[in-house]
Amino acid sequence: MQTDFCKELGIEVPIFAFTHCRDVVVAVSKAGGIGVLGAVGFSPEKLKEELDWIDEHIGDHIYGVDTAIPQKYEGMDKNTPEELVQMLQDAIPEQHREFSAKMLADAGVPEWPAGEDDEVTLSFSAVQAQALVDESLTRPKCRMIVNALGTPPADIVEQVHKSGRLIGALAGRLKHGLAHKEAGLDFIICQGSEGGGHAGEVTSMVLWPQMIDAVAPLPVLAAGGIGNGRQIVAALAMGAEGVWLGSRWLVSEEAHAEPAQRESYLSATSEDTIRSRSFTGKTARMLKNEWTEAWEREDTPEPLPMPLQGYLTFDAVRRTSRYAGSGDCQKVAFNPIGQVVGQINETESCRDIVFQLLTEYTDALDHLNNLMPED
Amino acid sequence: MQTDFCKELGIEVPIFAFTHCRDVVVAVSKAGGIGVLGAVGFSPEKLKEELDWIDEHIGDHIYGVDTAIPQKYEGMDKNTPEELVQMLQDAIPEQHREFSAKMLADAGVPEWPAGEDDEVTLSFSAVQAQALVDESLTRPKCRMIVNALGTPPADIVEQVHKSGRLIGALAGRLKHGLAHKEAGLDFIICQGSEGGGHAGEVTSMVLWPQMIDAVAPLPVLAAGGIGNGRQIVAALAMGAEGVWLGSRWLVSEEAHAEPAQRESYLSATSEDTIRSRSFTGKTARMLKNEWTEAWEREDTPEPLPMPLQGYLTFDAVRRTSRYAGSGDCQKVAFNPIGQVVGQINETESCRDIVFQLLTEYTDALDHLNNLMPED
Repeated sequence: MQTDFCKELGIEVPIFAFTHCRDVVVAVSKAGGIGVLGAVGFSPEKLKEELDWIDEHIGDHIYGVDTAIPQKYEGMDKNTPEELVQMLQDAIPEQHREFSAKMLADAGVPEWPAGEDDEVTLSFSAVQAQALVDESLTRPKCRMIVNALGTPPADIVEQVHKSGRLIGALAGRLKHGLAHKEAGLDFIICQGSEGGGHAGEVTSMVLWPQMIDAVAPLPVLAAGGIGNGRQIVAALAMGAEGVWLGSRWLVSEEAHAEPAQRESYLSATSEDTIRSRSFTGKTARMLKNEWTEAWEREDTPEPLPMPLQGYLTFDAVRRTSRYAGSGDCQKVAFNPIGQVVGQINETESCRDIVFQLLTEYTDALDHLNNLMPED
Repeated sequence: MQTDFCKELGIEVPIFAFTHCRDVVVAVSKAGGIGVLGAVGFSPEKLKEELDWIDEHIGDHIYGVDTAIPQKYEGMDKNTPEELVQMLQDAIPEQHREFSAKMLADAGVPEWPAGEDDEVTLSFSAVQAQALVDESLTRPKCRMIVNALGTPPADIVEQVHKSGRLIGALAGRLKHGLAHKEAGLDFIICQGSEGGGHAGEVTSMVLWPQMIDAVAPLPVLAAGGIGNGRQIVAALAMGAEGVWLGSRWLVSEEAHAEPAQRESYLSATSEDTIRSRSFTGKTARMLKNEWTEAWEREDTPEPLPMPLQGYLTFDAVRRTSRYAGSGDCQKVAFNPIGQVVGQINETESCRDIVFQLLTEYTDALDHLNNLMPED
């Protein structure tokens, strides 16, 4: 199952692990796949620290960095980070702030400690994204940059290419994949609606083959709904050059997650996720809870557009992550994950997960071959 | 690709064609798969006529019949068909009738000719379903009965088994598949959310493998999102014993469809469908149009529960089918189809479609084998 894209990157198996945890990056790369560090929400200092650790532990293996490089938000590339934060804060209605604060208080989620990391991170700003890309490109073992949302701007594409690295981007709609191709990207990550985080409405089964045909000969990595080796066979059978798994690592041994959040993931079925605008302002898949339901009701504020909703919920996201086990925190927590959550029922090491994926893959392929008549 | 379930039925390839058109049934069975006639909405007389024709044209091949055998609707198994229709008609609010009639009139859809087939068909009644099953079981070449909605009642399961035939049912949720197994059915048709008609929220990629594992050793037919051979490889790799395709035949040469409806299907992308309660009262996937949008608005009537909405829209369904090309009929027409609609862009014979599916299947399997290292 070594695809051409594996060979181009120099990895053994076409398993791409999207994760916010450096330990998962290292473990998957060492197991023959490639870890891609999700750096959205990281400050440049935080990214430097994480990449230092990865470089030190990953040996001769390679990795990638995923960030969110916006094409444009009106006015957002014209100011200093401080001015940007102020502009965003000013744009959030008081009613939204109060609603959000009350939900957290009612669920017994402790306040963030005053004075600790007071700075709001500019998750979706060009200034921030540029700093993250610059840092990543100083690392020889970082071989790919991924854009989580939209087509990256031409200057970033050029910068990454000049450094001798590959750049790709997520696409949940055909037209986004075609725009990425037009912009000169090297590969597309095509995510169906069952995937965790931001995704469109068309499912993996239908979207993958259409995307693969539409952007050919660009390599497509299949995302959304992959948690076992049978699903990897499905993806590669359609012509994907690799698979992009995010949800699968969230409860792995190496993942950083509070026990209460792990438990929410482990106990959820595939019917327990929802596509909601309540955390980022764009439709993203996550576990259903009182928070996601509250923002849907007619008597509550409408979620703001991205990036505003994300700044509004910055506090909710970090508090519900840190204090995942406090009070009724899980009722209002941000737990992004795909529908595959229903098939993830135990905690294993990333190495074991990769081994299982490969075993299941081989078994499924054997099964297919056994269905064919003998020559 | 001859699965055990193929062998049990005595068919060559595990392709199950769900269709309302007798010509498609015959063409697919003759091509090596098996046609399953969707008889929901047929009167017993109409079914008799269709099965006579099929029996005459299908040669030595076999087929199935799909109907909707309700477990229970309060009071619906206690009356004569005439009383039932009256009961349903009485339960529909005047506001709903007026809204529906106005939409059709505004779109320029002609009235149904007075005196022609004036009788309302009892699509979802036990009385009607029993008559359809009885008729089907008189036909030696009809080898399987499928229930489109829910677990069939125990007496029907027993009746079908005593006749030496197989009985199965659709399931869009794990718990439905488990209930079917408990009721002693012989196979499950597992449909993901991308499928046309009634479906749940979990997508095929995620639902199929879970269902296959949950109801084992019962055979599972994979439905929802299958329109080419690569998608069939995906289904069989996960352990499905066959594939159930509905959308794929809707614009085939053999399908009965007005040119305007065909054109609606041929020109639609995968983003043009919606899951809507506006025609049957249960969430079903169909092409988006003004009708589906109108029933979602806050200033319009809420769709009634099944079976009421279906009786309310009985007139809309048959008028928009018959007069598909009149006025703005397509803006209010009932066009049920899955997300695969986006990959169906030409009219072909069913025989050619089956041949293509098999060719694509073999090519995709060859591709998978080529990715494996040489021994």
